[in-house]
Amino acid sequence: MSQAPKEQLYEGKAKILYPTDDPNILISYFKDDATAFNAQKRGQILGKGEINCTVSAALFQYLESKGIATHYIDQPTPNQMRVRAVKILPLEVVVRNIAAGSLCKQTGLPLGKILPTPLVEFYYKKDELGDPLLTLERLQVMELATPEQVEQLIDKALQVNEHLTQFFKGCRIQLVDFKLEFGLDSTDQLLLADEISPDTCRLWDQQETDPNKRVMDKDRFRHDLGQVEAAYQQIQERVLAAVQANCP
Amino acid sequence: MSQAPKEQLYEGKAKILYPTDDPNILISYFKDDATAFNAQKRGQILGKGEINCTVSAALFQYLESKGIATHYIDQPTPNQMRVRAVKILPLEVVVRNIAAGSLCKQTGLPLGKILPTPLVEFYYKKDELGDPLLTLERLQVMELATPEQVEQLIDKALQVNEHLTQFFKGCRIQLVDFKLEFGLDSTDQLLLADEISPDTCRLWDQQETDPNKRVMDKDRFRHDLGQVEAAYQQIQERVLAAVQANCP
Repeated sequence: MSQAPKEQLYEGKAKILYPTDDPNILISYFKDDATAFNAQKRGQILGKGEINCTVSAALFQYLESKGIATHYIDQPTPNQMRVRAVKILPLEVVVRNIAAGSLCKQTGLPLGKILPTPLVEFYYKKDELGDPLLTLERLQVMELATPEQVEQLIDKALQVNEHLTQFFKGCRIQLVDFKLEFGLDSTDQLLLADEISPDTCRLWDQQETDPNKRVMDKDRFRHDLGQVEAAYQQIQERVLAAVQANCP
Repeated sequence: MSQAPKEQLYEGKAKILYPTDDPNILISYFKDDATAFNAQKRGQILGKGEINCTVSAALFQYLESKGIATHYIDQPTPNQMRVRAVKILPLEVVVRNIAAGSLCKQTGLPLGKILPTPLVEFYYKKDELGDPLLTLERLQVMELATPEQVEQLIDKALQVNEHLTQFFKGCRIQLVDFKLEFGLDSTDQLLLADEISPDTCRLWDQQETDPNKRVMDKDRFRHDLGQVEAAYQQIQERVLAAVQANCP
């Protein structure tokens, strides 16, 4: 920590939130801890905290430059991000461009099938229930967001998808799918929050066709594909190089 | 069988389909076999075949009288129904009035919560995948039905719900939720098919408040509540009495 650490506000599976002297600003500390399958599988990915913090910082800044409001302020140290304090909605907003993961398991769609249009899906962020898929109707009955918020979330998620797909194309990476979280700030503005990293995106190396070799994200950890750290480092390198190339 | 049985066309968990001399007409034979939790639990409910066939016949006739097209023709013997041959859509259309079952498990909504409006849900009829919940978007990507068919299914399911809720009220029974299946006949007309019975509906005795005593449906078998046969017989008695009362 850059200053004497205060008592933590919240510890999640991959990050810890600390307060600052300003109640509107928090420090998000990125851990090396890795979990999968609703924390049934646990481990560590060396250097992950710094990589995910750095990649997220780069992507949040990129999205801000495209007009997407995020919680990002700055990155005082490699594994710490200063963020605006928000009330996180208990929803995982998933955008899918290519069939993979639970979509294949639950529908029988083949891995790698390119979807006719991007799919925006909502999952209930609730570990005890295993983060279940929500229909829009269930989301309403559960009163997890207002209909206007749901419309905004879908709209923002699709915008983020367009920008990130474009960005990762410049990194020779296919953006298969990703998970976003959103929060409301003190003025009830919807901000993109949490992180955008190899932990929360499926990223395939565009030049690889081998279904195991192409995987550059947490699926290497989930499915014991090996070279997890190298893949995360590779993502960071390519993302930073793309940022550099875009800022002459 | 009322005539020498032909080779069966299809055997499901609760019914067997036989051909007849007319290719547009099938015999649906209702078995006493009971399964639950995707056939992980198996058993028999004595007399279930006859009861479910008789209850389904009564409800299909009632719905036909209200203008809902069904596959029902007649009931030549207590456990056999003559039905129009249809191509079944691989969808379970579930209508929920009160939170119960998987809805509670997956959302945390309390058992017995009256839903603000009836919820129509689609599940993929696929044992190998555990009949997963489908969002409307997944349904489209999987091409399981056309958008027009989905609209029709929702519309018909809500109509059936209104009629059945009314009917069961006359039996002093709360219609908690139920599952419908639909099929296309040779002219691509959508017909309500399968069965409507204590196997496919959650039915609560209106006069009982005890959460175990009020259950009159397959949940008695699923959760080992006892008196399964008595509950099924009680449903049959009340349904037939209501039919009698409606046909002076």
